[in-house]
Amino acid sequence: MQKLTHTLSMIKPLNEEAMLAARARQDSLTKPPGSLGRLEELSIKLVGIRGETIPKLERKAIITMAADHGVIAEGVSLFPQEVTAQMVLNFLAQGAAVNVLARQHDVEVTVVDMGVKSDFDDPRVLNEKIAHGTANMVEGPAMTRSQAVDGVLAGARVALKLIDNGITIIATGEMGIGNTTASSAIVSVLGDRPVGEVVGPGTGIDEAAVAAKAALIERAISVNSPDAADPIDVLAKVGGAEIAGLTGVILGSASAGCPVVIDGFISGAAALVAARLAPKSVNHMIASHSSVEPGHRSVMAEIGLTPMLRMDMRLGEGTGAILAISIVESAVKIINEMATFSEAGVAAGDQEPQEVPTAAGAGTSAS
Amino acid sequence: MQKLTHTLSMIKPLNEEAMLAARARQDSLTKPPGSLGRLEELSIKLVGIRGETIPKLERKAIITMAADHGVIAEGVSLFPQEVTAQMVLNFLAQGAAVNVLARQHDVEVTVVDMGVKSDFDDPRVLNEKIAHGTANMVEGPAMTRSQAVDGVLAGARVALKLIDNGITIIATGEMGIGNTTASSAIVSVLGDRPVGEVVGPGTGIDEAAVAAKAALIERAISVNSPDAADPIDVLAKVGGAEIAGLTGVILGSASAGCPVVIDGFISGAAALVAARLAPKSVNHMIASHSSVEPGHRSVMAEIGLTPMLRMDMRLGEGTGAILAISIVESAVKIINEMATFSEAGVAAGDQEPQEVPTAAGAGTSAS
Repeated sequence: MQKLTHTLSMIKPLNEEAMLAARARQDSLTKPPGSLGRLEELSIKLVGIRGETIPKLERKAIITMAADHGVIAEGVSLFPQEVTAQMVLNFLAQGAAVNVLARQHDVEVTVVDMGVKSDFDDPRVLNEKIAHGTANMVEGPAMTRSQAVDGVLAGARVALKLIDNGITIIATGEMGIGNTTASSAIVSVLGDRPVGEVVGPGTGIDEAAVAAKAALIERAISVNSPDAADPIDVLAKVGGAEIAGLTGVILGSASAGCPVVIDGFISGAAALVAARLAPKSVNHMIASHSSVEPGHRSVMAEIGLTPMLRMDMRLGEGTGAILAISIVESAVKIINEMATFSEAGVAAGDQEPQEVPTAAGAGTSAS
Repeated sequence: MQKLTHTLSMIKPLNEEAMLAARARQDSLTKPPGSLGRLEELSIKLVGIRGETIPKLERKAIITMAADHGVIAEGVSLFPQEVTAQMVLNFLAQGAAVNVLARQHDVEVTVVDMGVKSDFDDPRVLNEKIAHGTANMVEGPAMTRSQAVDGVLAGARVALKLIDNGITIIATGEMGIGNTTASSAIVSVLGDRPVGEVVGPGTGIDEAAVAAKAALIERAISVNSPDAADPIDVLAKVGGAEIAGLTGVILGSASAGCPVVIDGFISGAAALVAARLAPKSVNHMIASHSSVEPGHRSVMAEIGLTPMLRMDMRLGEGTGAILAISIVESAVKIINEMATFSEAGVAAGDQEPQEVPTAAGAGTSAS
């Protein structure tokens, strides 16, 4: 816990001075001020996070964390538990959606086993396992408090190592059959929202199964009584190992002044835990897409971020976050590469609408 | 007009058979069916447009069309009219936002002079000028009917030439001081919507100036009485040369089975004219981002498309469309490069939630 407190204490506020300079630069570029909207804001946020006047993105990484969930025993997913491990192998074989998008945008994929039930005998899977699957949260805590803390610390370690090696932006991703159930539980407790508002179809269960899933989550919350004022308690009792790991990835990135792009609902649940542990960490987060999973909207409202993409996606793995990384790159290129009004010899805008004499004669003002 | 009728008659329906095959392929890939949402839909739409079983994107182009507007004499913009021509030179110098994003995504930029007031003595600007700026629509029609038709035909010609040269996807963009005023007029008439609903700040005028702009548009509509049932009449009387050109780009692309990505509000107004001339052309359109300009929402509702990006942008040039081209590329890569369940040895999902015995004993079903 002491190590975690240290990580939290390292998260600095944004560099306001650098942000003012970036805003001034944006206003000098050949476009009406503000007309590139969130591309402008992103560039300014990045400058604030990294403290550089000229933002740079060099190596980009996605951290995809996998784990199994005891609650799967209750029948909450269309997919059997083995799929978690099978998909990890698919990540290694470059066959999953996250691999395809990472190749497109030159993003390095790090696959981490935070708590898959089976073991991988492959050096390409980072082993940070804190359990062989969590316990069934309907019967008691999914994890012990110390497992949850270990998971967060492991995630922070993974992020910091990548940053040490030259990574300048990190995206979050996950794989874990059953993990929308854990995420809904976390968001319900930390957001003080009814379970019905934050539960959804996951991999695609029907309405009746969603209702059963909601009832299960309510039972898990009632059995464990997680303390909403203690995010680690919530994470341990109704969370998951990959959610703990991602919480650490986010906090670790924030502590090192590295922007972190949040994928969909499960990554969002981790972001909410991170935000409650260290509210300043939100400054370092970039929201990517609006997940179809209904609880994602609640997460975004709780942490106060607005996704950029509306793709009706609900896969996870980090797929939405990678699409957003490409947009962050656009923002960086815009502030670095666009011509200024004076460089281009373009007249800057006035404060008042311009009246221009036409060929036919003097114009009349509308105002 | 005969040539235009010919172009319209060339627009074919989507290839339903190819789309069914693409849907089947999507459902065989290692993800819950539908979980990649609009990335899946985009890949299927592309297959339908191009009639290929395996969609390919090779060379990508943006067509940025420039023109001046007589209505600028009334004082509707913060920028002087000269900025249209100055920005064309900025496009040639690679200094504008569209150039930066086109470089990022390897998109070829074609700059077309559809009706700029001054002339360019530079072979890099495609000269398809139909006027040296339109007339002031508050005093009479902005263009003659034959100018409008010539503009549409020129746009179609530009698109068809690019497609002949190997371009497989086209994005629309524009530059024209005053062109949100013309676009609002078009959308108000063709959408039968009050001017107040479709008028906005353009390059950034304040509330009082927006009200004055709305009054001007109402005057232009009342002076010209454009016939909402005759899209060319509307385009001629209250439109603009670049909007005519973009209408042609969209129709030309659709006639050649080439997907066309629609940028923001001005491109949207052209898309609405195209949709009214040839409703089937909408099948070939891909919406990119939600412009801040309020009339854009009305355009999307009229043509029945939903933008993918929510970037609060309002620059034009094709900046939003280029961001979307990258997402279309993602969709193409996903359907081509992802592993199938059988290739990856991943268990496919069931119709019913799975119950899995836990280490602690048999699971109990929630249902």
